[in-house]
Amino acid sequence: MPNYRVGIEYDGRGMVGWQRQKKGVSVQQSIEEALFKFCGEDIRIQSAGRTDAGVHALGQVANFALLSHRDPQTVMNAVNQHLKPMAIAITSCEEIDSEFNARFSATGRHYLYRIINRLAPLTVDFGLAWQFKRPLDHEAMHEAAQLLVGRHDFTSFRAVACQAKSPLRTLEKLEVTRVGAEIQIRTSARSFLHNQVRSMVGSLSLIGTGQWQKQDLQNALEAKNRQAAGPNAPPYGLYLVAVDY
Amino acid sequence: MPNYRVGIEYDGRGMVGWQRQKKGVSVQQSIEEALFKFCGEDIRIQSAGRTDAGVHALGQVANFALLSHRDPQTVMNAVNQHLKPMAIAITSCEEIDSEFNARFSATGRHYLYRIINRLAPLTVDFGLAWQFKRPLDHEAMHEAAQLLVGRHDFTSFRAVACQAKSPLRTLEKLEVTRVGAEIQIRTSARSFLHNQVRSMVGSLSLIGTGQWQKQDLQNALEAKNRQAAGPNAPPYGLYLVAVDY
Repeated sequence: MPNYRVGIEYDGRGMVGWQRQKKGVSVQQSIEEALFKFCGEDIRIQSAGRTDAGVHALGQVANFALLSHRDPQTVMNAVNQHLKPMAIAITSCEEIDSEFNARFSATGRHYLYRIINRLAPLTVDFGLAWQFKRPLDHEAMHEAAQLLVGRHDFTSFRAVACQAKSPLRTLEKLEVTRVGAEIQIRTSARSFLHNQVRSMVGSLSLIGTGQWQKQDLQNALEAKNRQAAGPNAPPYGLYLVAVDY
Repeated sequence: MPNYRVGIEYDGRGMVGWQRQKKGVSVQQSIEEALFKFCGEDIRIQSAGRTDAGVHALGQVANFALLSHRDPQTVMNAVNQHLKPMAIAITSCEEIDSEFNARFSATGRHYLYRIINRLAPLTVDFGLAWQFKRPLDHEAMHEAAQLLVGRHDFTSFRAVACQAKSPLRTLEKLEVTRVGAEIQIRTSARSFLHNQVRSMVGSLSLIGTGQWQKQDLQNALEAKNRQAAGPNAPPYGLYLVAVDY
């Protein structure tokens, strides 16, 4: 059976996340249903990242098998047609070797977290970034963030429900930059634990306001206890930007 | 009476534009009503740009007089509170000399037009950019755009309903750049005619697809006839970015 790799973009607002749930609209189910409308096949697709409810994707990747060879451009256009008017789009589609698995073949995942640091409520960015009212020192956040880069036990930064066998992860990058009122946090790793990015961002916000010093972040990491880290930043500031293979 | 200058940001979706209309939600009326709720005064505010229905603003500027001195931060926070849940926000507020008029004191206006040039429907950018499916040659668009820079009679690029006395305008800048699928058109002038940016972008899109050559744009300009230019680009790709004083 031919294997297809697709790039996927979505606006996570109003959706229950990537994975099928008993209730609510998931990205996975929406695409599977659109595929069924296209070819009548009951297909299960697998993605590189099972994003949470409200989290966005600019460069999610998934794969699925079809019974017969189809023109990739036709698959993309037809699925997009059936996905309307949902804010989910297939941005690329190609036939790929049968060994390719979007989840297990991935060698790197890149996330962006957007904070708008201002008093005024958000308008065009509403639901697309975290409005943070108190002034944030992005340089202090960036400096402290470097403590988390490298191979660590991230137990303090994983959801209690996280199903990963090991809490060890190698964080390749955790960069904090600012342009005007917008603070962008970019992070990369081969893989992340459940809620890892949001809990790292939540802890960095404590650094940014001065409630935490660098040492507090170090202590949180070393505690290997979810209670020791800051609260999760809200999902709607988070974007899965790209996946490497 | 003390005069206040405010910076305003809004998401134009679902609104009838800046100016009060008989029907529908306008930015002007929404802010005037929020001001009334704050101070009980029936205030008329004037803005630098009377943006059309669906057009967004990141840096609109307006001014208004209040009967008494108020702390600008208090004015901003109170008006923002009363504006909720509308996608309109006061982003700055200051008391300013009584001569200041947001419309007539302006010496420069800066607009951005966003095109997403791809086949896939928009998700996070839906309503915030113009999806254009056919490939656009942004370099050809930029080169042709330079024909419009300078002082010209822009009759071909103004709405029939435009109320400006003269069709002469001096275009300071019209730049077309691309990052990935996104084409950004940035333009600056002391003032623009009604629909001028959208009709320039519409004509540039004809250059981008190859339907028009440079000479066709030159001919359209020289025709001094609205029928000679391309159609207006849709409003939801347009942003009033900043105003100079």
